[in-house]
Amino acid sequence: MNGNHTRNHTPLEPKADRETVRRHNLSLVLRAVRDEGEVTRAGVSARVGLTRAAVSSLVEQLMESGFLSESGKTFSGQAGRPGTVLKVARTGVAGIGVEINVDYVSVCVVDLAGTDRVRLVEHLDNRGAAPAQVLGRAAGIAARALASAAEQDLRPVGAELALPGLISAGTVRQAPNLGWTRVAAEGPFAEALAALRPGLAALPVRSENEANLAALAELWFGGLGQVRSFLYLTGEIGVGGALVLDGELLSGAHGFAGEIGHVVVEADGPECRCGSRGCLEQYAGQSALLRAAGIDENAGAAGVAELERRAREGDERAVTALRQAGLMLGRVLSGAVNLFDPDAVVLGGIYRPLMPWLSPAAGGELAGRVVSGLWPEGSGRLRASSPAADAARGAAARVVQDVLADPVAYAVP
Amino acid sequence: MNGNHTRNHTPLEPKADRETVRRHNLSLVLRAVRDEGEVTRAGVSARVGLTRAAVSSLVEQLMESGFLSESGKTFSGQAGRPGTVLKVARTGVAGIGVEINVDYVSVCVVDLAGTDRVRLVEHLDNRGAAPAQVLGRAAGIAARALASAAEQDLRPVGAELALPGLISAGTVRQAPNLGWTRVAAEGPFAEALAALRPGLAALPVRSENEANLAALAELWFGGLGQVRSFLYLTGEIGVGGALVLDGELLSGAHGFAGEIGHVVVEADGPECRCGSRGCLEQYAGQSALLRAAGIDENAGAAGVAELERRAREGDERAVTALRQAGLMLGRVLSGAVNLFDPDAVVLGGIYRPLMPWLSPAAGGELAGRVVSGLWPEGSGRLRASSPAADAARGAAARVVQDVLADPVAYAVP
Repeated sequence: MNGNHTRNHTPLEPKADRETVRRHNLSLVLRAVRDEGEVTRAGVSARVGLTRAAVSSLVEQLMESGFLSESGKTFSGQAGRPGTVLKVARTGVAGIGVEINVDYVSVCVVDLAGTDRVRLVEHLDNRGAAPAQVLGRAAGIAARALASAAEQDLRPVGAELALPGLISAGTVRQAPNLGWTRVAAEGPFAEALAALRPGLAALPVRSENEANLAALAELWFGGLGQVRSFLYLTGEIGVGGALVLDGELLSGAHGFAGEIGHVVVEADGPECRCGSRGCLEQYAGQSALLRAAGIDENAGAAGVAELERRAREGDERAVTALRQAGLMLGRVLSGAVNLFDPDAVVLGGIYRPLMPWLSPAAGGELAGRVVSGLWPEGSGRLRASSPAADAARGAAARVVQDVLADPVAYAVP
Repeated sequence: MNGNHTRNHTPLEPKADRETVRRHNLSLVLRAVRDEGEVTRAGVSARVGLTRAAVSSLVEQLMESGFLSESGKTFSGQAGRPGTVLKVARTGVAGIGVEINVDYVSVCVVDLAGTDRVRLVEHLDNRGAAPAQVLGRAAGIAARALASAAEQDLRPVGAELALPGLISAGTVRQAPNLGWTRVAAEGPFAEALAALRPGLAALPVRSENEANLAALAELWFGGLGQVRSFLYLTGEIGVGGALVLDGELLSGAHGFAGEIGHVVVEADGPECRCGSRGCLEQYAGQSALLRAAGIDENAGAAGVAELERRAREGDERAVTALRQAGLMLGRVLSGAVNLFDPDAVVLGGIYRPLMPWLSPAAGGELAGRVVSGLWPEGSGRLRASSPAADAARGAAARVVQDVLADPVAYAVP
């Protein structure tokens, strides 16, 4: 018995349109090669369940359009002739991701395989500047990254912005730590970028919450193994969060899900920029952590490095600050785990290097407070994010996902 | 651009099997009639996008199998001949739901339309008894309800148990307020029920968390209108919770999602039966509420009625207890809303009659602490559950859902 059948509100058509079927299957083959890394036509056929003849025809079209290439290697399977090994092209279609955060901008270009091919990070303070100025700066950095990409024969077909705020229908509804309210970011960024690249086609631009994109990067490029449902936290000036369920981002009814930084820890705690009091961010955000450790809270990345250095040396104030933040994180996380029942919790951003001092306290809270009993200490469910996965890469990879989903739409005529 | 295409890992078949198509379309037509209540063949055709001839043939088969009937009325649309009005059959195939809670058992039989046709509630204390004894009692109540159903020519084809605990693969992993740990409930219930109905075929039995089923009942039979994503809380001896996203229950990675009763409110608060401290249940569960109001915490439904009576009369202790519980509910709910971004929060169980005294404080916390700003006071997003929706009805309706999803599998040969 299974009650989950109500989604099918359309009649089945006995015949699907031939062109639709071919486009779907081109995507299926391209994704199979991307997932396998290197694979023969026979391997693709076994994976996707299409005949070898059908796969060969689809592969031919994908090679002509520049999406696939032959590696030159051959592979002998258990039966049949040795096959030529296929891989996705490392030039041509690509994606660009642009993370605009409070104290840095990070730009990443990824190829069809999802590999990070260009990376440009600038540390700067975006808090004092108007949104248009911040977006203009970010466009300048993106333009330099695009120039590097062009030198590698990579052609991004879209850009995605990663922003630390609540984003709905292309508008940043609120980004408290940037001081933004109701900012339409995509248009100004696209125009600023177009102005820097005269004669080139304007890139389509979209935007998404940075924690959501970092979580997707973790899903696609992190070391999560079989984990498909997890809660992701990123420590920055703010504390961002995202929920991934069965490999899909959980957006919520309005696109605002995952705001774990504004879960209340103490009802009468310190005021938060969001307008509430006692939010997790006020106990475990970058500024709060540095302040509690006796480090200048505006010291940015250098301050975090200093905190890590002091903790490593056993500085009591630093270690205590981290243990306290870990306790608060663990309390909020135990509640979130009771609500959402994920397979894992992944801590990214500044939490990654600080895990040795955060995780004992946080893990203890999870062990004691998760009702399912699935989070005993040593369960390995609380883990640091992968250094290879960040919001900019997630943003760039989303553009590539679109290509993989319908390569025909992105083929050069 | 849309990155959400990775689910399709199977090639499209140009032709679907003819029998599969017909079974799918029989379900489609049956659900269309159920959703519309009363509708002509032409109305069904317009709704599902199949030709009138195809609909007529499908309707004929559904009538022969006893799933549909003609109401006797006719309806003249804007064009064509008047059509005979169809409705789902009010006899025949049905579902039975059995909620086993701490201090009551509630059994419900619903027909194909989802209408509550038999209801049997017994107030008793299940805490002192062994699981087998509790399941045996519940089977006795279910057998009496099945006898009433038979008198109405209703034939339940399956039973679903609603239980206040963490359930995975048919086993109650933990039901702290019943005192159950690792109890396989389905088999013993099915056997006890079969022993009470000699000569009749044994019913297939499955089980699910009661808050999850109450939330589904709210979705299907409550007054939620366009709301498809909501957080559901039910106040009982424990505090149960469920998350519904886009009309689907969110189960979590292990089926344990929604345990809002064990979100921590105060780190060093009172011990909870789950093994943690300071859980929401210790502030807003039935026992805590009654105790705070100066009423015997073991008084059950009579105690809740007394609390409501005192609050209505303005008894200060009762009103204060409810305001405090509302504050704690609001704090936890604001965190859950920040995480999950639902369209609404629905309070059921004992919270429903107590809403006038709970909701001002809870609503104030939501207004002040939800970062999206979508929950100002008076937004109407915090609401009481419908009296027509409860876990037993949700459980019974899940059985009927299976029939609606594939009526051929349940047709009497």
